[in-house]
Amino acid sequence: MTVQELMQQYQSLGYQSTELYKVSEVFVRMKKDSAKIFLTFTSNMVTSGLRGFFAQVLKKGMADIVVTTVGSIEEDIMKAMGETFKIGDFEADDVDLHEKGKNRVGNILINNESYGKIEAVFLPILRELYKKKPRWAVSEMLREIGLVLDDEHSILATAAKYDIPVFCPAITDSAFGFHLYLFQRKHPDFMIDVVKDFGNILFSVSYDDKKGVIALGGSISKHHAILFTLLNGGAEYAAYITTAHKTSGSMSGANTNEAKSWGKVKDSADIATAIGDVTILFPLAMINAMEELQAEGLLREE
Amino acid sequence: MTVQELMQQYQSLGYQSTELYKVSEVFVRMKKDSAKIFLTFTSNMVTSGLRGFFAQVLKKGMADIVVTTVGSIEEDIMKAMGETFKIGDFEADDVDLHEKGKNRVGNILINNESYGKIEAVFLPILRELYKKKPRWAVSEMLREIGLVLDDEHSILATAAKYDIPVFCPAITDSAFGFHLYLFQRKHPDFMIDVVKDFGNILFSVSYDDKKGVIALGGSISKHHAILFTLLNGGAEYAAYITTAHKTSGSMSGANTNEAKSWGKVKDSADIATAIGDVTILFPLAMINAMEELQAEGLLREE
Amino acid sequence: MTVQELMQQYQSLGYQSTELYKVSEVFVRMKKDSAKIFLTFTSNMVTSGLRGFFAQVLKKGMADIVVTTVGSIEEDIMKAMGETFKIGDFEADDVDLHEKGKNRVGNILINNESYGKIEAVFLPILRELYKKKPRWAVSEMLREIGLVLDDEHSILATAAKYDIPVFCPAITDSAFGFHLYLFQRKHPDFMIDVVKDFGNILFSVSYDDKKGVIALGGSISKHHAILFTLLNGGAEYAAYITTAHKTSGSMSGANTNEAKSWGKVKDSADIATAIGDVTILFPLAMINAMEELQAEGLLREE
Amino acid sequence: MTVQELMQQYQSLGYQSTELYKVSEVFVRMKKDSAKIFLTFTSNMVTSGLRGFFAQVLKKGMADIVVTTVGSIEEDIMKAMGETFKIGDFEADDVDLHEKGKNRVGNILINNESYGKIEAVFLPILRELYKKKPRWAVSEMLREIGLVLDDEHSILATAAKYDIPVFCPAITDSAFGFHLYLFQRKHPDFMIDVVKDFGNILFSVSYDDKKGVIALGGSISKHHAILFTLLNGGAEYAAYITTAHKTSGSMSGANTNEAKSWGKVKDSADIATAIGDVTILFPLAMINAMEELQAEGLLREE
Repeated sequence: MTVQELMQQYQSLGYQSTELYKVSEVFVRMKKDSAKIFLTFTSNMVTSGLRGFFAQVLKKGMADIVVTTVGSIEEDIMKAMGETFKIGDFEADDVDLHEKGKNRVGNILINNESYGKIEAVFLPILRELYKKKPRWAVSEMLREIGLVLDDEHSILATAAKYDIPVFCPAITDSAFGFHLYLFQRKHPDFMIDVVKDFGNILFSVSYDDKKGVIALGGSISKHHAILFTLLNGGAEYAAYITTAHKTSGSMSGANTNEAKSWGKVKDSADIATAIGDVTILFPLAMINAMEELQAEGLLREE
Repeated sequence: MTVQELMQQYQSLGYQSTELYKVSEVFVRMKKDSAKIFLTFTSNMVTSGLRGFFAQVLKKGMADIVVTTVGSIEEDIMKAMGETFKIGDFEADDVDLHEKGKNRVGNILINNESYGKIEAVFLPILRELYKKKPRWAVSEMLREIGLVLDDEHSILATAAKYDIPVFCPAITDSAFGFHLYLFQRKHPDFMIDVVKDFGNILFSVSYDDKKGVIALGGSISKHHAILFTLLNGGAEYAAYITTAHKTSGSMSGANTNEAKSWGKVKDSADIATAIGDVTILFPLAMINAMEELQAEGLLREE
Repeated sequence: MTVQELMQQYQSLGYQSTELYKVSEVFVRMKKDSAKIFLTFTSNMVTSGLRGFFAQVLKKGMADIVVTTVGSIEEDIMKAMGETFKIGDFEADDVDLHEKGKNRVGNILINNESYGKIEAVFLPILRELYKKKPRWAVSEMLREIGLVLDDEHSILATAAKYDIPVFCPAITDSAFGFHLYLFQRKHPDFMIDVVKDFGNILFSVSYDDKKGVIALGGSISKHHAILFTLLNGGAEYAAYITTAHKTSGSMSGANTNEAKSWGKVKDSADIATAIGDVTILFPLAMINAMEELQAEGLLREE
Repeated sequence: MTVQELMQQYQSLGYQSTELYKVSEVFVRMKKDSAKIFLTFTSNMVTSGLRGFFAQVLKKGMADIVVTTVGSIEEDIMKAMGETFKIGDFEADDVDLHEKGKNRVGNILINNESYGKIEAVFLPILRELYKKKPRWAVSEMLREIGLVLDDEHSILATAAKYDIPVFCPAITDSAFGFHLYLFQRKHPDFMIDVVKDFGNILFSVSYDDKKGVIALGGSISKHHAILFTLLNGGAEYAAYITTAHKTSGSMSGANTNEAKSWGKVKDSADIATAIGDVTILFPLAMINAMEELQAEGLLREE
């Protein structure tokens, strides 16, 4: 059975399978309508094996703006430098892992040494950038990193190749931040200009553009995207996949209906929210959508 | 992309996609090892479009004993009589639905009139059964119903055809119960013998059999299956799919590890638990397993 | 700070604290309106330390009918016989626990030997009952057990004392079931009459009674109560506390709105659903309600 | 019954009530051990009525460093300017709310006009700050805002009064960001220096300090605190309250065990994680802890 056949079954199965089918259809319609698409995800999804799939999604033209947290940036670099993350166990002995230098994210393990790879990539770039100018907006810096990464599975590299801006509103919340901090101590006029990036993302779309949002998980990545659909008149399309529920009032659990009260999506927007683990649900919905769009010649060819 | 290819990807994606892959592999191994397989599900899964898939699973030999709640029985009969359930909306106006005679189960709607179909099927059978003897174990009665249903997508019909017993430990918790009650008022010696069914399910497997459990959702269906693996020395294989978490101590959220403390599964059992909506996860895991088994000629041919 | 003062704060805090306040107020209003109150809970709540609190709730007149699963019955008896359950760890080594004869329910441990206590209590009663008559409805048998338990913290004993029927629609799903089975093998005319209990619970309330439902957790206990409010015209009051969400269409997650589509509660019913762990939420809501009712002299005095 | 009496009961009830008791005890022990305490919360908790309670917690010396998201900052200012948020309904008609200028966060409503209040407070401050110097670290700017707010229930005002730094790693993710952006367009040398704040939070504690973390909800606030306990050798104490589960590998669901693998908390740390809605659980655990500490004279007196 193919994924497309299964998704067709989901349409009428009920519960979240039906909602997932709707999510996939919203993906299709936002693309057919040439909406500018915000893709947001949290860093644990780049920890997972979805990273290469995200790069593929960018390559095929299914996203025009990326918003994520800084862990995604770091791990994209690590993996581009050849690091691999092993599958572990949700119920692992964490003291034992700590002694072995393994950091756990759910059932995935990151070696301590992987963090060294960031330094090796990042410091030379920082020095080059600083030679050009002392103030860098985050997205502009991330583009420069993407340009030097040689890995077709890299999110940053693919984004740079296709001029897709990557926004990361809290860039210092990481080892990355530590390198920035040390660099600024040596070069006090070195500045990360987060305010400038507000303008960059604000003008990455316009009132007149049709706008779509694909939000995977919650947190600041999701909020940051829908803040800018709001400031640009509201999105015409929005599809969320999350494990969080709306009952605690969290951003992670806020659904596409709640977004209407804010004008983050338009009153008449085409919306869907599916509840479940992104590693299972997103590939299903996106592969189904991309195969449908591919058949109609609507995906980007290289 | 095929479901099998996607499942192969899941193996190394992390989080629940990896757990789902493990679930699928446990399905494969329990079948290859000729384990007697308990399949349990809650009635909302028969409300969903999974009903026909369950019938297919039975037909292909992936389950030897079924345990479910009485809603499953009722809705299997309704659907065998031609009733269809429409997809609705989780956020429907329930007062309006009530006025229209539509009962909501999540985003699925059941017409009030569908309940009339149960009566039409069940009462003639009850009369026939009573002519034969006044005391009926539940599973024996359900087998008789299965024999008269003419629908290859019916769980009861397929179970009857392949001599798969269907256990339902709380048969009176339903409209069904009402019919039984009215019948007993007319025929005071008519008895549903739940105690006898304890023996029937107890001896449906033995200490010497390899045993497997596929538990979808929680509740009494799940507990009833693992009670009898416990009484028969513990299952060698167990795979659970549920949306519930272990943190509240519920049976729905109890995972395959907790089952070891009880001896419901053996200390060395081959186990996996995936968290997510059964309508999405079960078809993925089971189709993947069945295609693998089919290729090796290990599924039942008609 | 008192619980009542805290609950007053909750009224305006938002999210689930506000919903919990509403639940507590529904408790108050159903009692003030002299509704016949169904109290339902799953057995893991009797595994927890809530058992004595449930007995207190019954004693004070806050419930008129109890519906639960058979684990509750067994553990109420064990505890009445002096067994105590220790607090353990959600992340325990379950193989180790199994070797030590400890069964885990979340973070609570039950000794294997505790099950021996059931036999000691139950078998003499069974023999006495059988001498009187061979057919017993479940609730009638449970009342007899309650009458011999000498423990003011016992649910069964308190229920028996105040003529509160206890319904348990799947009595055989347990060690209890095993004893019934062995007894029936010796005495083939011994019957547990579950059909008769359908009538007993059906007539435990009437169309003309105001009816209330307090459902803790989900499963068959919850469904069984609202089946009988449905058959009696719908409840005027319903308050649910559960960790499950409505998104998977389960009975555990079905909220008080969904119940309206079925007529399980009336269109105009006074309803509330709070999401969270019953061990935390129920004492808060019920203590608050009982202190308010006590102050107005509306609770039962001995 | 008092909250302290109830919490004592929770200790032995099991499931999350027991975990919540442990959380409260970790609060007590981190304070008794004079740990430097990081308090983190997401903005929806300031949307809720918890805001004044957080101010009280700061005033009494139960937190030394605050980390939160920018929504918290904005709503603290709005409320300090007299705005009140009404309780609404999780199932509201969001199109209708949008037309009425009401933004929904779960079951809480924020009037559009409330955002005007931010401007009224913030712009004069920005002009004053810029006169002093063009580069401001976020925490330094927030302190200045706190100094002008005249409201004892304000988080910023209380933090400023007691020299508690407030960190907000993604300050531009908000209306606030828009004001900063407009200001920078007029004054191109105006800079928000997020890199400097990395140093500020890094040195807000030291390797030699005992460190504690109280994390409410997840997201970047939580991650940012434990990044700095990690960089300072790991926390001795950590207590998390969240509705998220560990099964999807999210930061929100990552528990205090997972933190050990990273060294975010020490191998031997005193830790607890309770699952549930913060609006219910946090007041219970913190009131209990503060009353115990107050009795021993360990809370700050004015």
